[in-house]
Amino acid sequence: MTIWIHQRAEAEIARDVAEATGPLAGIRLAVKDNVDVAGVPTTAGCPAFAYTPDRDAPAVAALRAAGAVVVGKTNLDQFATGLVGTRSPHGAVPDARRPEFVSGGSSSGSAVAVATGAADIAIGTDTAGSGRVPAAFQGIVGIKPTVGVVSTDGVVPACRSYDCVTLFAADLPLADRAMGVLAAGAGRREWPADVRLAAPPEPVVAVFDSLPELNPLWRGAFERTVGALREGGVRIVTVDPEPFLAAARLLYGGALVAERYAAVGAFVDAHAESVDPTVGSIIRAARDIPAHRLVSDLATLEELRSRALASLAGADALLTPTAPGQPTIAQVAADPVGANSRVGAYTNFCNLFDLCAVAVPSGMAGAAQFGVTVLARAFEDAVALDIAARITNGDSDTPTPLDTVWPLSVAPAQEVIVFGAHLRGQPLEHQLTDLGARWMGPVRTAPRYRLAALDTHPPKPAVTRRPDGEAGVAVAGERWLLSPAALGRFLARLPPPMQLGAVEFADGTWHTAFGCDGAAAAAGKDISEYSSWTAALAAGAVG
Amino acid sequence: MTIWIHQRAEAEIARDVAEATGPLAGIRLAVKDNVDVAGVPTTAGCPAFAYTPDRDAPAVAALRAAGAVVVGKTNLDQFATGLVGTRSPHGAVPDARRPEFVSGGSSSGSAVAVATGAADIAIGTDTAGSGRVPAAFQGIVGIKPTVGVVSTDGVVPACRSYDCVTLFAADLPLADRAMGVLAAGAGRREWPADVRLAAPPEPVVAVFDSLPELNPLWRGAFERTVGALREGGVRIVTVDPEPFLAAARLLYGGALVAERYAAVGAFVDAHAESVDPTVGSIIRAARDIPAHRLVSDLATLEELRSRALASLAGADALLTPTAPGQPTIAQVAADPVGANSRVGAYTNFCNLFDLCAVAVPSGMAGAAQFGVTVLARAFEDAVALDIAARITNGDSDTPTPLDTVWPLSVAPAQEVIVFGAHLRGQPLEHQLTDLGARWMGPVRTAPRYRLAALDTHPPKPAVTRRPDGEAGVAVAGERWLLSPAALGRFLARLPPPMQLGAVEFADGTWHTAFGCDGAAAAAGKDISEYSSWTAALAAGAVG
Repeated sequence: MTIWIHQRAEAEIARDVAEATGPLAGIRLAVKDNVDVAGVPTTAGCPAFAYTPDRDAPAVAALRAAGAVVVGKTNLDQFATGLVGTRSPHGAVPDARRPEFVSGGSSSGSAVAVATGAADIAIGTDTAGSGRVPAAFQGIVGIKPTVGVVSTDGVVPACRSYDCVTLFAADLPLADRAMGVLAAGAGRREWPADVRLAAPPEPVVAVFDSLPELNPLWRGAFERTVGALREGGVRIVTVDPEPFLAAARLLYGGALVAERYAAVGAFVDAHAESVDPTVGSIIRAARDIPAHRLVSDLATLEELRSRALASLAGADALLTPTAPGQPTIAQVAADPVGANSRVGAYTNFCNLFDLCAVAVPSGMAGAAQFGVTVLARAFEDAVALDIAARITNGDSDTPTPLDTVWPLSVAPAQEVIVFGAHLRGQPLEHQLTDLGARWMGPVRTAPRYRLAALDTHPPKPAVTRRPDGEAGVAVAGERWLLSPAALGRFLARLPPPMQLGAVEFADGTWHTAFGCDGAAAAAGKDISEYSSWTAALAAGAVG
Repeated sequence: MTIWIHQRAEAEIARDVAEATGPLAGIRLAVKDNVDVAGVPTTAGCPAFAYTPDRDAPAVAALRAAGAVVVGKTNLDQFATGLVGTRSPHGAVPDARRPEFVSGGSSSGSAVAVATGAADIAIGTDTAGSGRVPAAFQGIVGIKPTVGVVSTDGVVPACRSYDCVTLFAADLPLADRAMGVLAAGAGRREWPADVRLAAPPEPVVAVFDSLPELNPLWRGAFERTVGALREGGVRIVTVDPEPFLAAARLLYGGALVAERYAAVGAFVDAHAESVDPTVGSIIRAARDIPAHRLVSDLATLEELRSRALASLAGADALLTPTAPGQPTIAQVAADPVGANSRVGAYTNFCNLFDLCAVAVPSGMAGAAQFGVTVLARAFEDAVALDIAARITNGDSDTPTPLDTVWPLSVAPAQEVIVFGAHLRGQPLEHQLTDLGARWMGPVRTAPRYRLAALDTHPPKPAVTRRPDGEAGVAVAGERWLLSPAALGRFLARLPPPMQLGAVEFADGTWHTAFGCDGAAAAAGKDISEYSSWTAALAAGAVG
C-alpha cells in the first residue's frame, strides 16, 4: 500500500469522527504530504526533507474547523514535481483499479485515497495539473480553484507563483461543499466586485480544434462528452490550441522551472542522495538559468496568455480531455521525463494563464476512466462548476444542476428579488443571466403588497406597498444573487417606471427587490388576487 | 542646449498648430526619446541603438489625435536607466533655473522642456521615478498612472513589468486633461468595477514616521506641506517606511535589474563602446544573475508589498517628498551610482508595489524647487489627484479642487441623482463619498415631479412622477458618479421606502435617481412649491 506516508490510528480517527461537529462533521480527510498537519511530519515525499510543523496549514485548519477528520498524509511525486505518481521513495502509487497503470500525480495518494473510499475528501496541490490529472485517472472530481483564492501557507512550494491547494472528492457536490469551507476559512486573494456567479443557461464552450497526442480511445470518449453537451444546449466553438500548448511547454522547458530551484534547490544540492533522480535532475538543471531568460519567458508567457484569452472571448469556458492518455508504470519508468511531459499537455497552461479548473469523470475510454476538465477565467469558478455539473454529478449518470457553488461563500454578492418579466423562463431573464446572476429559488413578500400589470412591452408587474392599515397580498417572486457591479449595471439600465428598493418578506426582513413609480403602478391593472405574475399570466389576466 | 535630441522645424510646428483640432488642439508636446514618433529616430539616448519607427507609439498617437503637436524628442538618461539626467552622450540636462544642479531623470529633457515653456506637455516614462523626480526638481507636475493603464507599446523597455508612460505639464488641470486623452486613447489594462472616483472630503494621508537621507531644508518644506494639508482638513497618520525603502533597494540592488538586461542586454554586450559607462555597468552586471534569485526577490517583494499595503489600511494615500534632495551635476559625476540611488529613495518602490502617483510642486526648499508625491493604490488615481490638488493647482498658490479627473474617461462608472439627504453637505452625503462617489454638479428633473418630505430620520425627500397630464415641478438635484460596484452596494443598503430608478430630465433623457415607494410618498408632506430640498429646509418646511 503506497497511498500513505503517514496514517493516523483508526481508534483516534473514530473518536474524532464521533466528536466532530460542523458542516463537514465526520468527513474523512486525506492530506497530501506537502501540506502541514500539526504534529505530523511534512515530508514532501522526501524523508530527509521532513520537518514537523507546530500548526496546520490554513487549508487543513479550515476543513478541520468545519468537522473534517484527518485520516493521514498521502504519497506524492516528490516535491510535487511530476504528474505520474511514480517519483517517490515510498514507491509508485498505482491506479486504484488497474495497478499496472500510473495513478497520476503529483497528488497521487490523495486521489487514490478518495477513489478507494479510504477518504471522503482529500487535499491536493496543483501547479502543472497535480490536482486534475490524478482525478481523471481515478474517476473522481478535482477542483483547482483560481490561483491564490486558497492560502498556500504551510504548503511546501513547488512553483510558488502558480501553486494551488486543490480538493478531491468522489462527486461534485461534496467537492464543492468542502471547497466552500476552504475558500471561506483559508482565503487569501481578494475577489473582484464583478464576478459571475453562474454559467448562463446556454453556455458557450470552446474546445481545441486539434488535440495532438490524444489516445484514439480517449478521442472517442471526448467526442461523446462534447456531443452530449451540445445535445444539452451548450454551444461548442473551436479555438487554436497553439498558445495554450506553447505555454504548457514553457512550464518545464523554459526558465520558469527556476521557481522550483528557488523553492527547494538548496536542499536538493545538499542532499543529492536523498532526492528522486528524475526530480533532482529537473531541479538541479534550473540552478544556472539566468534571470534575464526568466524575464523573457515571462514576457512570452504574457503574450501567449493575451492571445489565448482573446481566442476565448465569447466563450464561457474551455473544455479539454484532462490528459491525452494514461501511461503504465513501466512506460513512465522507461521514459520518466517524456511520459510525464505528455501527460501534462492539456493541464500545464492553466495556472500560468490564471485560469480555474474543474476536473470531472466522463465515462470510460476503453478500460480507462476518462475525465475532462472545464477551465474558466480567473474567479469564474462558478461558471466552470456549472458547466462541469452538466457533464457529471459524480455517481449518477444524469447531470443535475448545482443548487449552490462554493464561490458564493466568498465572492461579494448582492441579491435582487424579481416578480415578473425577470422570473426564470420569462422574457427578460437574460438581463440577469447575462450579468452572471445566479437563481436562488422562489420567495414571497410579506402580505403587504399590491400587484398590478403595467402596459409595457413586455408586460411587467408593479409591486407596491399598501398604505399602513390596508390589507395586501404576499407576492410570489424569485431571488437572484449577483455581483455588486452587476447589480449596479442592472439598475443603471432599468427603464422607467421600474425601480429597485427594499421589500418586506414574511419573516420581517427586507430585501432589494423590484418596485415601481407610484403613478405608473396606480395606472396599472390590479391583479393582486393572483399574488403571482405567472398565475396571472396563466389565467389570461395580463395584456 | 541639451534638452533635445531631435527638434522639428518651427515652421512645421506652426503649421500643425494652426491646423490642429480636438481637445488638445495646438498643445505643444515633447516626447522622451525612448518613445516612438513615426519617421523620427528613437535613440533611447544611445545613437548606435537608433531605429526609425513607421508609426507613433499608441501614447503619442492618442495625444496627436486629440490635437497635440509634437515639437521634438527629448534627452534622457540612456535607456531610461537613471534618475539624474546626466547619463547621456548628448550631455547632462541641467536644472532649468540652477544649471549647476541636475535636472532629474531619466525624463530630463521632457521635464525641462515643460519647465522652460518649450513645450506645454511632455511624455515621460517611469520605472523607478523618472516621471516624478524631474517634475519635482523642475517645479512642474508629473502624473505616473497605475502601471499598465497606458500602453507601453512603442516604448523602449527599461524594466518591462514596471515601465509606465507618464505626463508632465506646468499645472495639474492640463496634465490631467492630457492624461485623460492618453488613458482613453492608449489604454491597455482593464479597470476594475469598484474603483473609487474621488478622494473623500476629509482624506486620511499617511506619511513616513522617519525620512532618512532627507536634506534638512527639504525636511522643513515637507513639514510645511504636511501642516498645510492638516489645516485643510486632511488627517495625517504615520507609517513605518521600512518595507517601502526595502523594496526601493531591491529595484537596483537585487535581481530585478535582470529586466534591464532582458530589454537591452544583448545590444549593450555587442556595443560596449556606444553605451554610457554607468548605464553599461549596471546592465552588464545583471547578465549573470540566476533566475532563482529573481524568483526569491519577487517573493520578497510580494511580502514587502503586503506589509506596506497593510500599513496603509485606513489611509487614502501616502505622501512623500518626491526626492530627498537635489544633487549637483558635479556630485553625480563624483559618485554616479550612489548619488542616483539616493535620489530614488522615495520613488523606487512605487511601481514595484503597483501604486499610482502624482508629483506636484510644493513651494521651495531654500533655493531649490520642492515637490511632493501623492501615492495611492492601483487604480485609485482619482484619489491621488484630488489630494494632489489640495497641495497645488500649478501656477496658483491657492489650491482649488479638480472639476474632473482623468480616470472618468476610462473607469467604468454609473450615475445616481440625489435630491435630499445625500446632497453635498447633507447628513447622508458620506454614504456616497465613503463609496468613492464623485460630485458632478447640480441638475434638475423635467417639470413632471412631485416633491414631498418623508417623516424619516433624517428627513428625506420623496420625488415621484405626476400622473400623465398633471403639472409637476422640476426638482433640483445633484449628480454623482460612482463605480458599478459602489452603485450596487449603495442600492443594497437602501432602507425603505427609498427606491432607485430612472427619472426624466429637462432634455428628455432619463437618469438613475432616487424615487420612493408610492404609498410612503403619498403620506409625505407635499413641498413641491419649493422644488428643492435645500430651499424647503431653509424655509423651515421640513420636519
